[in-house]
Amino acid sequence: MCALTRKGMCVEGSFSFRKVGDFARLDEARAARTGVPEIILAEGKTPAQVARIAEAARGTVIVSRFSPAHLREVRKAFPKAEARMDARIIVVRKGKRPFLRDGCAIGVLTAGTSDIPVAEEAAVVAEEMGCKVLRAFDVGVAGIHRLFPALRGMRGAGARALVVAAGREGTLPAIVAGLVDVPVIGLPTSTGYGFGGKGEAALKSMLQSCSFLTVVNIDNGVAAGACAALIAKGVER
Amino acid sequence: MCALTRKGMCVEGSFSFRKVGDFARLDEARAARTGVPEIILAEGKTPAQVARIAEAARGTVIVSRFSPAHLREVRKAFPKAEARMDARIIVVRKGKRPFLRDGCAIGVLTAGTSDIPVAEEAAVVAEEMGCKVLRAFDVGVAGIHRLFPALRGMRGAGARALVVAAGREGTLPAIVAGLVDVPVIGLPTSTGYGFGGKGEAALKSMLQSCSFLTVVNIDNGVAAGACAALIAKGVER
Amino acid sequence: MCALTRKGMCVEGSFSFRKVGDFARLDEARAARTGVPEIILAEGKTPAQVARIAEAARGTVIVSRFSPAHLREVRKAFPKAEARMDARIIVVRKGKRPFLRDGCAIGVLTAGTSDIPVAEEAAVVAEEMGCKVLRAFDVGVAGIHRLFPALRGMRGAGARALVVAAGREGTLPAIVAGLVDVPVIGLPTSTGYGFGGKGEAALKSMLQSCSFLTVVNIDNGVAAGACAALIAKGVER
Amino acid sequence: MCALTRKGMCVEGSFSFRKVGDFARLDEARAARTGVPEIILAEGKTPAQVARIAEAARGTVIVSRFSPAHLREVRKAFPKAEARMDARIIVVRKGKRPFLRDGCAIGVLTAGTSDIPVAEEAAVVAEEMGCKVLRAFDVGVAGIHRLFPALRGMRGAGARALVVAAGREGTLPAIVAGLVDVPVIGLPTSTGYGFGGKGEAALKSMLQSCSFLTVVNIDNGVAAGACAALIAKGVER
Amino acid sequence: MCALTRKGMCVEGSFSFRKVGDFARLDEARAARTGVPEIILAEGKTPAQVARIAEAARGTVIVSRFSPAHLREVRKAFPKAEARMDARIIVVRKGKRPFLRDGCAIGVLTAGTSDIPVAEEAAVVAEEMGCKVLRAFDVGVAGIHRLFPALRGMRGAGARALVVAAGREGTLPAIVAGLVDVPVIGLPTSTGYGFGGKGEAALKSMLQSCSFLTVVNIDNGVAAGACAALIAKGVER
Amino acid sequence: MCALTRKGMCVEGSFSFRKVGDFARLDEARAARTGVPEIILAEGKTPAQVARIAEAARGTVIVSRFSPAHLREVRKAFPKAEARMDARIIVVRKGKRPFLRDGCAIGVLTAGTSDIPVAEEAAVVAEEMGCKVLRAFDVGVAGIHRLFPALRGMRGAGARALVVAAGREGTLPAIVAGLVDVPVIGLPTSTGYGFGGKGEAALKSMLQSCSFLTVVNIDNGVAAGACAALIAKGVER
Amino acid sequence: MCALTRKGMCVEGSFSFRKVGDFARLDEARAARTGVPEIILAEGKTPAQVARIAEAARGTVIVSRFSPAHLREVRKAFPKAEARMDARIIVVRKGKRPFLRDGCAIGVLTAGTSDIPVAEEAAVVAEEMGCKVLRAFDVGVAGIHRLFPALRGMRGAGARALVVAAGREGTLPAIVAGLVDVPVIGLPTSTGYGFGGKGEAALKSMLQSCSFLTVVNIDNGVAAGACAALIAKGVER
Amino acid sequence: MCALTRKGMCVEGSFSFRKVGDFARLDEARAARTGVPEIILAEGKTPAQVARIAEAARGTVIVSRFSPAHLREVRKAFPKAEARMDARIIVVRKGKRPFLRDGCAIGVLTAGTSDIPVAEEAAVVAEEMGCKVLRAFDVGVAGIHRLFPALRGMRGAGARALVVAAGREGTLPAIVAGLVDVPVIGLPTSTGYGFGGKGEAALKSMLQSCSFLTVVNIDNGVAAGACAALIAKGVER
Repeated sequence: MCALTRKGMCVEGSFSFRKVGDFARLDEARAARTGVPEIILAEGKTPAQVARIAEAARGTVIVSRFSPAHLREVRKAFPKAEARMDARIIVVRKGKRPFLRDGCAIGVLTAGTSDIPVAEEAAVVAEEMGCKVLRAFDVGVAGIHRLFPALRGMRGAGARALVVAAGREGTLPAIVAGLVDVPVIGLPTSTGYGFGGKGEAALKSMLQSCSFLTVVNIDNGVAAGACAALIAKGVER
Repeated sequence: MCALTRKGMCVEGSFSFRKVGDFARLDEARAARTGVPEIILAEGKTPAQVARIAEAARGTVIVSRFSPAHLREVRKAFPKAEARMDARIIVVRKGKRPFLRDGCAIGVLTAGTSDIPVAEEAAVVAEEMGCKVLRAFDVGVAGIHRLFPALRGMRGAGARALVVAAGREGTLPAIVAGLVDVPVIGLPTSTGYGFGGKGEAALKSMLQSCSFLTVVNIDNGVAAGACAALIAKGVER
Repeated sequence: MCALTRKGMCVEGSFSFRKVGDFARLDEARAARTGVPEIILAEGKTPAQVARIAEAARGTVIVSRFSPAHLREVRKAFPKAEARMDARIIVVRKGKRPFLRDGCAIGVLTAGTSDIPVAEEAAVVAEEMGCKVLRAFDVGVAGIHRLFPALRGMRGAGARALVVAAGREGTLPAIVAGLVDVPVIGLPTSTGYGFGGKGEAALKSMLQSCSFLTVVNIDNGVAAGACAALIAKGVER
Repeated sequence: MCALTRKGMCVEGSFSFRKVGDFARLDEARAARTGVPEIILAEGKTPAQVARIAEAARGTVIVSRFSPAHLREVRKAFPKAEARMDARIIVVRKGKRPFLRDGCAIGVLTAGTSDIPVAEEAAVVAEEMGCKVLRAFDVGVAGIHRLFPALRGMRGAGARALVVAAGREGTLPAIVAGLVDVPVIGLPTSTGYGFGGKGEAALKSMLQSCSFLTVVNIDNGVAAGACAALIAKGVER
Repeated sequence: MCALTRKGMCVEGSFSFRKVGDFARLDEARAARTGVPEIILAEGKTPAQVARIAEAARGTVIVSRFSPAHLREVRKAFPKAEARMDARIIVVRKGKRPFLRDGCAIGVLTAGTSDIPVAEEAAVVAEEMGCKVLRAFDVGVAGIHRLFPALRGMRGAGARALVVAAGREGTLPAIVAGLVDVPVIGLPTSTGYGFGGKGEAALKSMLQSCSFLTVVNIDNGVAAGACAALIAKGVER
Repeated sequence: MCALTRKGMCVEGSFSFRKVGDFARLDEARAARTGVPEIILAEGKTPAQVARIAEAARGTVIVSRFSPAHLREVRKAFPKAEARMDARIIVVRKGKRPFLRDGCAIGVLTAGTSDIPVAEEAAVVAEEMGCKVLRAFDVGVAGIHRLFPALRGMRGAGARALVVAAGREGTLPAIVAGLVDVPVIGLPTSTGYGFGGKGEAALKSMLQSCSFLTVVNIDNGVAAGACAALIAKGVER
Repeated sequence: MCALTRKGMCVEGSFSFRKVGDFARLDEARAARTGVPEIILAEGKTPAQVARIAEAARGTVIVSRFSPAHLREVRKAFPKAEARMDARIIVVRKGKRPFLRDGCAIGVLTAGTSDIPVAEEAAVVAEEMGCKVLRAFDVGVAGIHRLFPALRGMRGAGARALVVAAGREGTLPAIVAGLVDVPVIGLPTSTGYGFGGKGEAALKSMLQSCSFLTVVNIDNGVAAGACAALIAKGVER
Repeated sequence: MCALTRKGMCVEGSFSFRKVGDFARLDEARAARTGVPEIILAEGKTPAQVARIAEAARGTVIVSRFSPAHLREVRKAFPKAEARMDARIIVVRKGKRPFLRDGCAIGVLTAGTSDIPVAEEAAVVAEEMGCKVLRAFDVGVAGIHRLFPALRGMRGAGARALVVAAGREGTLPAIVAGLVDVPVIGLPTSTGYGFGGKGEAALKSMLQSCSFLTVVNIDNGVAAGACAALIAKGVER
């Protein structure tokens, strides 16, 4: 049994795994099989568990939604681990920086200032997958005219997919998708209070959009960045 | 005990009422007290009940969300009752047409074609309250450029309040409210299927709007029209 | 492209904006375009972000739902910034106090004592927009007779719109709207525990009201105050 | 094992039951034990099942929420069964009419005309339990002044408990409970459309009421009537 | 305008009120009108507000859901105020203890140990209204046989109404209501975790009960106790 | 790759499948692998699709939630297909009747009469898996004493697992699980109206039960019957 | 103002529109601007409205979720309009068939037989956008081994994006996304009854997926197909 | 009245109970009657209450979801009480360790590392009931190939029931149930953020599973372990 990649090759050992203590079974070939590096959600895991899994993994490891305790424990094993506080991500690189793949470029937009941390989570993941990321923050619909120059800049720079983060009413992705012919991924953020707050209205309005777009879950910048990069990487061949 | 109107006058008998059969107590002075004509929600009432209440009321009566049976029964009592099928409204005028109040003008916009019936419900109510209604339908965000000329037309014609009907993701009211300095009332409609459908996402995104607007319940064109007319009528003095 | 105001004039540069660091794009003409001053929701923004946006804005800036850290940082830039603790609002005035517009008067009522902070948020915003605010607190339905004198006072003083704040069962706005002929804005507050608590029952009962009123989201005093002021300002011309 | 009634007597056979076909086990002593006659919810049961259970029961049987097919089948066994169409109830009396208990009187109020069928369900059940029922319909908050004379009438006639039916925003029970010193039972009805419709807002606002009252489920007139009668019957001794 | 009590007397000044600072309007005659003492929900009010309202009120004052700060401030004004920690209630008695009304007795039961604080809230309120309270805790359905002796004791002692507190699945009130002929009030408590936790399943199952009972909101012991006492007091005359 | 059964044997071809038209891939070894016969949910499939899948399957086929059109089409292929109308199940037996496995016995109880169809769905599935089914219907909590003799009968007859169907408040499974030492499966049914109706309260109260039981989804008699039979069959070895 | 396409060209008239009666404003350049043909959601529009919009549009028109009346009216204007009953789509081609773009290939999978109509909706839209569609139906997790050969076939045929339709528990997309390195779009379908039915559980489990994928709303095959085609078309350049 | 166990014996005093202070009525025969030891949910009980109940109980006592204060108080009474921190369980053994019952073996699996604490809760309860527990953690669907060897190991070791814990999308139990012929209990865990987070999506997808399994509530490891052990114990005879 083997997994076929885009290039049609069989990934050796594509379904092997390695036990890490008695608390994890590392799916070692996942990065090769799916094109996404090992990403560990720190929430719900102890600092020691996160550090051990990071040690066991091959290639770059990304730790998301970490606490200070997680960072301290990971830094014991990897003193050079990079903490991207704006994105709540730790990057543990075991080899070189990702080389910038030719043509792999995505855009990341936010409706407001509060959406930036989640958008950065998406951006950092895509960068670690070798993509150039073009950012434009606070271009939401309360002043919709701020959007047009940002979009033109992104298209000019060759963005192949757009991640659009928005909280509260979550309108921006639908508007962007009505203006461009690249795939748009809506990324709802948990901003806003009251009824439909914490990102719920944003998610629902993206799902109900008259324009055509796909969405990820509230605050799931990791999925948005990974999927956007997968789309953009497809273009390079 | 008397109710004060805007003009500071005491409405005579402002808290009297009249029994209609044993099933209704007609609040006779409500129209004088609140500035809104008698509006009967037909759903949940029998045709005979609706017709009897319409007979007992003073002044214009509006019957909303009626069935064919309601219309037949009302027409027995008022053969000239006007059925506005597009708005699901019956208008029973006991006096003359409402005279057009100077300066009382509102705009009614819809995001899509499917939102028109609910928007017409709002428009007809406002017209019966003596306001001019400017309509612009299908100007939603999937092609946001359709909106600007419509708004300019409305402002040029003196609209003092805007009712903006939208279903599915319900984005349009927030965008309009970011562009104008007149009060905007969001009117969610029960279009759209799947999660957040039937107007739920629309309502929530209007409530979460970064722009400043007020909303009414899903499909409640009657309330939107009445409140918009109350706002616009205030301007006339 | 220009935006038309009520007075029919084209606002110069009505769709320009200014970048603030890389985290905000200030929609500079929004105040002129929409008639509402720049209002910054502090929640979800860092103190530095809030202070920088406040510095970049023209005219009065209102910061809502702030923390002590936000206040400290804003005060570094604007030592005279006024902190309205009762309303959780910071007012940064760059020019003079708002002059009281002739005829711009609104009423703000609460059902209970716990609703006062949210009601004050609405009141302060309206005051900064140049309106007189008439307050009457704790007039809710458990003792409905407390309401009548308050309403008479407000009508006598020329209130052109009423903001009615209520939590728990949220009944008061519907009752007020059945008694007056000025527009009523329901403002649900997040009081109450158990099922339908945190303002949910209040919001839903306002949306279901048999009387005609419009609503804003739970605890969104800012929107209620801004919309009420927009309504009342319309009357002055 | 025996059950004690209010009078402190042991009910003979208070925990016996009788099998009806293979589809029901009739709890024969329930009426004696709980003071409420056998009430069969027809929905979800076949006409034959309803008729067989009615035959097997001792004393008066009440069938609620019946369809025409249920009525036909019940009438085969009990040609004189009384169909109260306004209340969607069939009454099968095996003995005499309930004698009117001295002092057992309740009031049944509705906010609107659409709430009458559910209110009648409550009224009929209480009447079959031997109570006098005072009715006042359409006294809701959109014209709150209609309420006072109705309440005075009920108190004058000795009502010992009040059932207050209301749909949409469901406000009326809270207001009544703030005005009287008899127990109030809120009865939400499934009127109203849009968000919080079908009685949901009504139920939630009754549960959140600042006044003190108890509630039953949406449209459950049977429970409201039975509980009100149990309260009022307690007074007689 | 005056309110009629059970005894048919007009309560003097039954609709007067007194302003307390600018934050409260004390409905002074409410106790006389409704038969329930002044009960202040401390949550959402400042300690100073609670203390001032307590001072202004006539007769006994009950403060529910208080924090230590509320207690300190109330004790400054009323050093002898009684803190019932088990019920989260402060009792401020301005006159004598409530005399025990003849015949006014209720039962308070809980399904489990965790339900006791909410049940005590109900019990204390009823006691302050002059009723005898019979308690039986931890008699829930996981061991249903514990219930029978408790019920027999209560009936023997003359309980005229039963408050039955239950969390998690909330079954107990339905079972009790199937066994007795006195009114049962279901009091759901916010125990239990996971889906339907925090009292939601308990509330819903009480509303869906096949037996006949009424309910109050989750954790609302105050309402349960007040309504039970109103029922029991009715019996005494 | 092979699947191990309880007896430790490798099922030949345990992961093969057969295409049926272009609309289904029949998992041929599922019955051997999982111990449950092929069960086709008719809802959402065309009559032709259901009939073709039934033809392609090996061994007994059960069709659940079928319409008359499904039955007609299945009967074209299998004229002797048995329609169990009470359970909304068609049984297509290709071999002999299931032989009654020694010791495989389960009990199926319902709280009310309306729960019988769903309970029968469970019973028929278990019977087709070779188990004896002991039935006791209408033993719910409104008259809890009806339960004890039924339980004693089932235990005496050797029931190894109990399926307990209940709608509305869904209490019965928790009570049963507090009385016996065999596994109890709660089966919520979609009876009941109003809030928490259609089985929602029943499901939630089963999930919140203080006693220990497992549940299946609302109306999913098939899963309840299959799992109960799997439990009971385990006993036979 | 002009819109930039992927090829960096300015689309002439990219923000023009044409009025259709008074009920629609056709965004004429949308197809050129966004790369997706005009797609009309028939639900909520009258047959005449649908037909008139179809006539006014340039290029291919797709009508989704149509009724027989819609089809009749469209066929009056376009007798050759193709009705894809399996996908509930009408295709009105005004020019030639879409030419098959080199390299534009997607896969469409379903978990079960009932998911096919929604999956076909996605497939037909992608085909009209010039993509080859590879189908594999009924490969869901109840027999997960059916999935592997289907995936291998799709990868071998060059699929650049996968649409994975699933109802009920909605697991399949997450599993597929853990096996391949092409973008996966989860398409929840409204199959399944009981709690979390009608596609809700499917949507939520796709949003919660540990693998990385994006989703569209329940039953929104149109969006899934359009986005998948946009992804696949990106590859061709 | 006596309860029958599987062995057909009448449990002496099976419905007796003992009062513990005034806050608990210990159902002393529950362990004998139901086969599950006394399990005390610490949440919502004071440390003193927990300790007193533990003292009063006969046989082994399990305290779940305890805080440090609960542990301290229990240790005062039982210095040797064993704290299983990984499972959040205290075990108080009054006699010997449970002897390992012949044949009583269950498997406990988790989809991810974060699910381990809840799974351990199930495992510890089953062990205290005398069962052998086979563990396999982190075998979820993102790398489904990790599952097969784990399942084979469990079947080889004689597991008679499987508890499968999973959070987020909750897919694993459905997949396991499609592969084996032993009863599977789905145990949703409160991992995951965003919409459907905190275990809600996991619970719903387990309830919607196409495979046949039963479920317990979110994080209710105690119920899963107890029911699995009851199933496995049935096999031994």
